[in-house]
Amino acid sequence: MINLTLSVPEVHCDHCVMSIESAVGALPGVDTVAVHLDPKTVDVAFDDQAVSLDAIIETISEQGYEVVR
Amino acid sequence: MINLTLSVPEVHCDHCVMSIESAVGALPGVDTVAVHLDPKTVDVAFDDQAVSLDAIIETISEQGYEVVR
Repeated sequence: MINLTLSVPEVHCDHCVMSIESAVGALPGVDTVAVHLDPKTVDVAFDDQAVSLDAIIETISEQGYEVVR
Repeated sequence: MINLTLSVPEVHCDHCVMSIESAVGALPGVDTVAVHLDPKTVDVAFDDQAVSLDAIIETISEQGYEVVR
């Protein structure tokens, strides 16, 4: 399992948290996802042989939040 | 910049730390790398558009340390 912390500065409320956690959590290969409002980060534990880093970042973007790379 | 924490159970001494930090730190696109003996993890901050997660994991493997995925 790979542990990743992404910077997502636009998250600011519980709605943001729910949107990202639901979408990323639904990806096959994602074990856990936790959005933190302070600091504005998303922690993801995932199987990199089942889901790519790009797919995780793209899924967050699709919810309307830019990942700072 | 993407922040990643990898589990590398075989690191056990300062030589391991130096080997991994030197090799991963030399990859283009890697900003910082820090090996921790307790817990046995490798933190990497990297530009995922310049270096892939696979390349980082492979570089650690080439030094003789398996990354638990």
